[in-house]
Amino acid sequence: MASGAPTMVSDASQGPAGAAPLLPLGFTASAASAAIKKPGRMDMGMIRCPAGATLAAMYTTNQVCAAPVQLDRRHLRESRGHCSAILVNSGCANAATGDRGMASAVEIADAVARACDIASIAVQHNSTGVIGVQLPLDRMIPQIAPMAARAVHGSIEEFARAIMTTDTYPKWSSRTVTHQGRICTVVGCAKGAGMIHPNMATMISVITTDASLTPSEIDGHLRAAVERSFHRISIDGDTSTNDSVFALASGAAGAFPPDAIREAFKEVARDLALLIVRDGEGYERGIHVRVTGAPSDADALSVAKSIASSLLVRCAVTGGDPNWGRILAAAGRAGVTLDVNALTLNVGGIALFGSGSPSATPLAEREAAFRKSMVEVHLDLGSGEGAEEFISCGLTKAYVELNADYTT
Amino acid sequence: MASGAPTMVSDASQGPAGAAPLLPLGFTASAASAAIKKPGRMDMGMIRCPAGATLAAMYTTNQVCAAPVQLDRRHLRESRGHCSAILVNSGCANAATGDRGMASAVEIADAVARACDIASIAVQHNSTGVIGVQLPLDRMIPQIAPMAARAVHGSIEEFARAIMTTDTYPKWSSRTVTHQGRICTVVGCAKGAGMIHPNMATMISVITTDASLTPSEIDGHLRAAVERSFHRISIDGDTSTNDSVFALASGAAGAFPPDAIREAFKEVARDLALLIVRDGEGYERGIHVRVTGAPSDADALSVAKSIASSLLVRCAVTGGDPNWGRILAAAGRAGVTLDVNALTLNVGGIALFGSGSPSATPLAEREAAFRKSMVEVHLDLGSGEGAEEFISCGLTKAYVELNADYTT
Repeated sequence: MASGAPTMVSDASQGPAGAAPLLPLGFTASAASAAIKKPGRMDMGMIRCPAGATLAAMYTTNQVCAAPVQLDRRHLRESRGHCSAILVNSGCANAATGDRGMASAVEIADAVARACDIASIAVQHNSTGVIGVQLPLDRMIPQIAPMAARAVHGSIEEFARAIMTTDTYPKWSSRTVTHQGRICTVVGCAKGAGMIHPNMATMISVITTDASLTPSEIDGHLRAAVERSFHRISIDGDTSTNDSVFALASGAAGAFPPDAIREAFKEVARDLALLIVRDGEGYERGIHVRVTGAPSDADALSVAKSIASSLLVRCAVTGGDPNWGRILAAAGRAGVTLDVNALTLNVGGIALFGSGSPSATPLAEREAAFRKSMVEVHLDLGSGEGAEEFISCGLTKAYVELNADYTT
Repeated sequence: MASGAPTMVSDASQGPAGAAPLLPLGFTASAASAAIKKPGRMDMGMIRCPAGATLAAMYTTNQVCAAPVQLDRRHLRESRGHCSAILVNSGCANAATGDRGMASAVEIADAVARACDIASIAVQHNSTGVIGVQLPLDRMIPQIAPMAARAVHGSIEEFARAIMTTDTYPKWSSRTVTHQGRICTVVGCAKGAGMIHPNMATMISVITTDASLTPSEIDGHLRAAVERSFHRISIDGDTSTNDSVFALASGAAGAFPPDAIREAFKEVARDLALLIVRDGEGYERGIHVRVTGAPSDADALSVAKSIASSLLVRCAVTGGDPNWGRILAAAGRAGVTLDVNALTLNVGGIALFGSGSPSATPLAEREAAFRKSMVEVHLDLGSGEGAEEFISCGLTKAYVELNADYTT
């Protein structure tokens, strides 16, 4: 890291508590209502960077990939990592919509390009909502030029609210990097709720900064941040057709030490990932699984993911039920060779299993550990140095209720 | 197949409708109550084959494998596929119970061996129920000699009931094979409910026949049957510490054409698998996914499994909600390369998606297809000859309720 005055990454507000952070220098934003799913709420959000930004993006790996994501991939490639405007709509995913869906995505990107006076390949556009329904272009297109004209350098709140679907609150986070008396910010927002899983699923996040970054630098920062955040959470194991994380750097605040920017990206992404889990459909209680002592980090991740994704473990978490046997059973089916006698299981710091046998912890203590708002599971495999973590939440009746009647 | 009079495999009763089938010749059974979890119900079942039977068994692949399963593996190996008595208890899984748990399993097997006057390695023993709790040997051991003495050649019902945990009804199925005027039967029972998944999970099944089969023959029949039945169903994706399928052949009815016996094994196993799904915890509606036109059978299975296991698809099935976009999204994350424009999706014979676009089927018809007692999903990938199927059920609030409060 560069010398002189110390470089510092400091916290700022996170949603929903606290005021929404101001966009970094160089960015403006606005929102509009096109009554895409139902009238009366903002369902289109735009972020502009009139002087141009470098862009990195990670898109869903789902083979049934929405039209706008296909378009975005092309724009990212053809622009060589540059972007001047991003438009996201909620209420309709424009996925599984065939040639007409692709034509709609192109038409929207072209409208944004005209409104902002930029090349179409400098536009990123995504949609989130129900699959298999066409976008109401007749209502959306007329909103685009006024939106572009209205965009101001204000808070990220309006954009963060416009992209929400079943989210119950908007999600944002920011960090300020101070270096030799100068500052820059990293400001992100996200929408999540159901269908969250590694490799991203109906999750859309936009992270902006006014630090100066090349396309290759911002790509590196984004990938490192996503790996330790969005790729470590799951609500329901489904990855969607539209998941995307975008990162844009305006450069308006100049250059900063890469380590500090990377750290700020990681912290913002981790905040957003945790906000997504806490707003998971039907969320009542979280589960944070830490696995240590594994033969490798990859093994630790497999075991942590298996535990955090197990329906039976997740039901036990909801019930505050200290049925720790389900945790061992989930670990045992992760595809990693285990020595049962070497396992040590703690939940909330309470010993539950070790040396091949259940611990004698009284029931009341075991129950208390399972009734925290975040159930902290720590399983040591006793067979190496590999460590990883994974975060999920209890499976609830409210989740089933919400998802059993979504389109109709 | 041997000539002469035709060989015929014919249906018999299946549980819960219809009377329980009689055990094949050579087998006797009994049950007892040891108040393992709570008093007042039969919680131990024994099947004997006093003249000896050949044995095949498939055990859980979970690394956290219960003590009795570890013991069974050794007995199967050391006896070279022979067994004279099997004892299963419900109410306690004897899993994650350390050295004491293993000593308990050994003590039970020894007690069965003494009571039946057979070698310990001729005993198979399994347990099902809660993990991490020790068996109440003081109450169980005294029951074993009387049980062995009471065993009679009757119906399979008492045994099938004694091994139930959260099952709401006992499960059995049988087939009669007729060949040149002689008959033999294949009679199976199972316990299932939650935690069912390929490679078996808190699922215990015993299939008996009086056909004469070598250890290698019965092993082949069992593996073929399990592959097309228990390995094609899922309730919640969790595999357990205790899952086992046992097959025993007494030989009392003599030799029969292998193809007919294999067919009877397959049909019995498939009946039992379907009964398990229909009795899945909180079951309201089933989902049968057929995938065709895949590059390979393995690809077809991956896609079918991904669809049938998707929480969002399973919630839609519960809600009778024709949200078919979730089916495509689940197919898209199965790890198989898909050409979206080549996909054809039908549910209950109703066209929903083809040629890259949603079909124009009226909502009422789409809803009706999702509101059958078994939702029949057929996805053609349009890229090969591979075909497979997978069966699951809707995810319900009742499932969450049952599993959020199981130990306490």
